Amino acid sequence: MISVGELGEFGLIARVTARLPLGAATAVGPGDDAAVVNVPDGRVVATTDLLVDGRHFRRDWSTPYDVGRKAAAQNLADIAAMGAVPTALLVGLAAPPDLPAFWAERFADGLAQECDLVGAGVVGGDVVRSDTLVLAITALGDLQGRAPVLRSGAQPGDVVAIVGRLGWSGAGLAALSKGFRSPRVVVDAHRRPEPPYAAGPAAAIAGATSMIDVSDGLVADLGHVAKASGVRIEISRGAFEVADAVGEVASALGVDPLDWVLGSGEDHALAATFSSSDALPAGWRIVGAVAAADPDGLVLVDGNPYATGGFDHFA
Amino acid sequence: MISVGELGEFGLIARVTARLPLGAATAVGPGDDAAVVNVPDGRVVATTDLLVDGRHFRRDWSTPYDVGRKAAAQNLADIAAMGAVPTALLVGLAAPPDLPAFWAERFADGLAQECDLVGAGVVGGDVVRSDTLVLAITALGDLQGRAPVLRSGAQPGDVVAIVGRLGWSGAGLAALSKGFRSPRVVVDAHRRPEPPYAAGPAAAIAGATSMIDVSDGLVADLGHVAKASGVRIEISRGAFEVADAVGEVASALGVDPLDWVLGSGEDHALAATFSSSDALPAGWRIVGAVAAADPDGLVLVDGNPYATGGFDHFA
Repeated sequence: MISVGELGEFGLIARVTARLPLGAATAVGPGDDAAVVNVPDGRVVATTDLLVDGRHFRRDWSTPYDVGRKAAAQNLADIAAMGAVPTALLVGLAAPPDLPAFWAERFADGLAQECDLVGAGVVGGDVVRSDTLVLAITALGDLQGRAPVLRSGAQPGDVVAIVGRLGWSGAGLAALSKGFRSPRVVVDAHRRPEPPYAAGPAAAIAGATSMIDVSDGLVADLGHVAKASGVRIEISRGAFEVADAVGEVASALGVDPLDWVLGSGEDHALAATFSSSDALPAGWRIVGAVAAADPDGLVLVDGNPYATGGFDHFA
Repeated sequence: MISVGELGEFGLIARVTARLPLGAATAVGPGDDAAVVNVPDGRVVATTDLLVDGRHFRRDWSTPYDVGRKAAAQNLADIAAMGAVPTALLVGLAAPPDLPAFWAERFADGLAQECDLVGAGVVGGDVVRSDTLVLAITALGDLQGRAPVLRSGAQPGDVVAIVGRLGWSGAGLAALSKGFRSPRVVVDAHRRPEPPYAAGPAAAIAGATSMIDVSDGLVADLGHVAKASGVRIEISRGAFEVADAVGEVASALGVDPLDWVLGSGEDHALAATFSSSDALPAGWRIVGAVAAADPDGLVLVDGNPYATGGFDHFA
């Protein structure tokens, strides 16, 4: 099997680029000093993430296609969480020279598939040699004339709502960590999150006062909103439905499935606040309320603090 | 000395972010799901690069400040090479937990200083743990209403011109590789390139037909222009001045200094083609001409092929 080292930089770029979508907003794609992406709005939304082999993905747990899907998804979800529509990705691949070229190609296929869900293109990138396999993804997006929905806009009296899966990825990770490959539906959810991309712009249109991508765990991420907004957020366990497969894994492992719903990230659900429950777009479920101004930015679950450190990437 | 692992993700982000410039075009800076950067033009220019410890920089040769300057410079230069003005950087830091926090802070200072040269801000980023220190930089830019200057626009009859240093970084690298720390001027040039940022937009305004950032070596990079444009480019050794310090290192090491001028990268000069020598903006020097259409995209030096493989990042 040919390796990326044998292909060389330009051979690898040619093989990978051929598999990637150009995107509707792309004016100049890969191959020049830089790409040019249309943002008719006059403002571009931009976010970047690093994924490190063995920490953010495991090559024995996830196929390269899955890693591509997930790497794209977590960045595209950040764009959606601003109320914007993703338009483009730039992708850096730092790879050991013995990485199979097949791995890079299937990784590109995963990126392409996830980008196709939102019409984004892969407009540029870089490949370099590294002992550790590191993926660097930057996503760009277009606000289409809307104000960005920040973390800092929640107001006392607002309802707190979520859209997308919660706890699925956590249950899948727990199963994989115990050596299981099933239930398939939660294991697949861990490998390939399914962020509710369209719900981000829909929430912005509906007047969401704040919004965040749930990547560290719902309580931890609502904590970011609470701190940025200077408010106290209260949610209740009873507001959450636990998916059957999530409950099944929890029973088998003897844990409370709500710990995954409230404490685990990587499903890339969206959480937002709205000034009225009447304003909720389709798919959003109310799980709590913004109770009061609070400079400490507390989040209470059924009236009590919830023990979560969130996820520290150096822990 | 405190390490980034001891600081933790959020502590590190707080320390680093405090040292970074916001940038005139920044509408939403670090701290939300994504940044928002103004591009009144309606198109954003974007490029990304990875730098790996031990390959693209050496911590025993360069201070963290120097690495920050260089990491920013090589991406900002790519924006300038499109004829655009840089507006923003996003920065990913994959670091071993024992990296001194001081290193990350001085790296941030270097990024900040280089961004200040062009008025760009650092608008977002990510920090993660990795066995290998990897830096991922994405730069954004604004075309200010101009057409992007591509590699593919060179026409037979055009003059070929350069602006900025050539050979300095190569001489500095050669000196460092032999264990020397001098001449200081070329060693510093290797550590902190000085791309002629303003010359990129100036060339675009003057009607440059093609342009490229010289990062792989002049002949290799003109080869990219020649191939993309389908032309043959001819340059002559006599057109290049060799800086005194570059000549001094070459004499000491018994090599031809023009090998660095023509074959080594990392000074981030700009090379461009113009339809007439009358059109050259200040600082640009003619070094050759576009001789004819040529699907092979040859570059000849004094009429002969020049042996260069360019730089393969997997070599």
